[in-house]
Amino acid sequence: MSEFSLIQHYFTRATPSAVLGVGDDAALLRVANGMELAVSTDMLVSGTHFFPDADPFMLGHKALAVNISDMAAMGAQPRWATLAISLPTEDKAWLERFSAGFFSLADLFNVELIGGDTTRGPLNMSITIMGEVLQGKALRRDGAKVGDEIWVSGVLGDAALALAHMQGKVVLSEDDFNAVAPALHLPQPRVSLGLALRGIAHSAIDMSDGLLSDLGHILERSDLAAELQFENFPVSKVMSSYLQQSLGRNCTLAGGDDYELCFTADVMRHAELEQLAKNLDLKLSCIGKLVPGAGYKVYAKDGNVMTIEEQGYEHFN
Amino acid sequence: MSEFSLIQHYFTRATPSAVLGVGDDAALLRVANGMELAVSTDMLVSGTHFFPDADPFMLGHKALAVNISDMAAMGAQPRWATLAISLPTEDKAWLERFSAGFFSLADLFNVELIGGDTTRGPLNMSITIMGEVLQGKALRRDGAKVGDEIWVSGVLGDAALALAHMQGKVVLSEDDFNAVAPALHLPQPRVSLGLALRGIAHSAIDMSDGLLSDLGHILERSDLAAELQFENFPVSKVMSSYLQQSLGRNCTLAGGDDYELCFTADVMRHAELEQLAKNLDLKLSCIGKLVPGAGYKVYAKDGNVMTIEEQGYEHFN
Repeated sequence: MSEFSLIQHYFTRATPSAVLGVGDDAALLRVANGMELAVSTDMLVSGTHFFPDADPFMLGHKALAVNISDMAAMGAQPRWATLAISLPTEDKAWLERFSAGFFSLADLFNVELIGGDTTRGPLNMSITIMGEVLQGKALRRDGAKVGDEIWVSGVLGDAALALAHMQGKVVLSEDDFNAVAPALHLPQPRVSLGLALRGIAHSAIDMSDGLLSDLGHILERSDLAAELQFENFPVSKVMSSYLQQSLGRNCTLAGGDDYELCFTADVMRHAELEQLAKNLDLKLSCIGKLVPGAGYKVYAKDGNVMTIEEQGYEHFN
Repeated sequence: MSEFSLIQHYFTRATPSAVLGVGDDAALLRVANGMELAVSTDMLVSGTHFFPDADPFMLGHKALAVNISDMAAMGAQPRWATLAISLPTEDKAWLERFSAGFFSLADLFNVELIGGDTTRGPLNMSITIMGEVLQGKALRRDGAKVGDEIWVSGVLGDAALALAHMQGKVVLSEDDFNAVAPALHLPQPRVSLGLALRGIAHSAIDMSDGLLSDLGHILERSDLAAELQFENFPVSKVMSSYLQQSLGRNCTLAGGDDYELCFTADVMRHAELEQLAKNLDLKLSCIGKLVPGAGYKVYAKDGNVMTIEEQGYEHFN
């Protein structure tokens, strides 16, 4: 099967919202009047971001999810994506499952695959996502203000805990692993939350590299410091039994791959955000506040500043 | 150096035409009123598309060039690009040269790098290019008409001949290799030509996989056949001495990596296109015409139909 046929067979679906979809030198899109185009790209590499034998359905889901998550973090409505993929061999069963995972999530968020490239090489997939956001209304990293409360969605660290189990750094019971594994394999991008936060949040980021690392980007770009209350960090039932161990604390503070949103908002918005959590049926937790300065302090329940060993995941250490 | 610092150091330049460039969850762009956004993506993999020891400057040039070429083929003005790259090690000298090659071409075409991702893994680079084209004016593959003349820019097959030399399939003299190597390593995207062809050409494509393969996409999408005159095929002085050998004929008919444009236009436009060639100082050759049917025939000088062995380059054979 040729490259052309591969794209035709596995990666070509109707693209009603594009002027022209897959099959020409480029796709053609119309961005609605009054909207800005938000664009982000992420590359996932076998052995770096996932195990070589990872389930292709979950991989297709995750490759798109991490990109859609960037749209959520901007308060953008995801619209279109391109996919470039290199594969060691033309494995039909793999491609079938991968594209099924990809399109199941794409369909859920009305994202249209409007272009692609397939080629031979070590397993690698690169997605560029495009979304629309009202002009001037995007949630940026540089808009945080002194006194803002710091919020996170969902729970923290489950993805890292699942990974630690798979790497043999901890042994979870089967039930516990099954409870945290979806956070790692099937992250749910928080698009509805991102859209709802426009006009409420001053800044936002999605957590791919761990809370402290990603919050750090907001602090740096907004030129502020953070005071965090560890007892307010949202964790799962499984994680709560690991919080006395450094592994559990590290996963919670610095574990990657959560793809929850971290955002800041004026304290006056507190009740509104609690109501939003109910409306979206999504846990939103206020974990601290922004103060003048740089860096962060994490306070334990006893009021002492915690010593932090880990500072987030970096691909190049 | 962290992933973040890598992007900061090597891949962050001013992006005056973007609302927001590198450094947030997504870039923000405004597409001008009345314009469509053309989007295309290409992935280049070490060992598949280039030799592992390829000069990084030329690689940076070529990775962007093949993408800009897709904009040229649509008649679009290239505007913005994202770059995702995986590298086995953080090789500073390599990154320095690669980014220099990338930005030298980007500057030439006013393309702004508005987003990126760097990660560890086998050498792979994936670029998504975005351009603007007047609504409804893009050059598509499906617009060709019966009776159209078939044109190509530049010369055909030099890139494939240079590659054949590097693969040991032919031995070129040093002078000859130096004459054809730039076609392979430093392809020049035909943006000015693409822009000038709007309103003139009925269809266009850029030649990445070889003339017959790429013209084949126009034929398929436009539901037509081609009659080609081999003696009218534009070749370089070096190539002309190889046309008696099957290697030379294969390079000319089916050699990949030329990144010249192939387009079709009404015969009434012939003189206008000859004038355009002079204005752009770019060779434009009429090599045949479109007829009803499917597939193609290539006629030799003696009027006989040539037997074609090769049908273009496919990554998955």
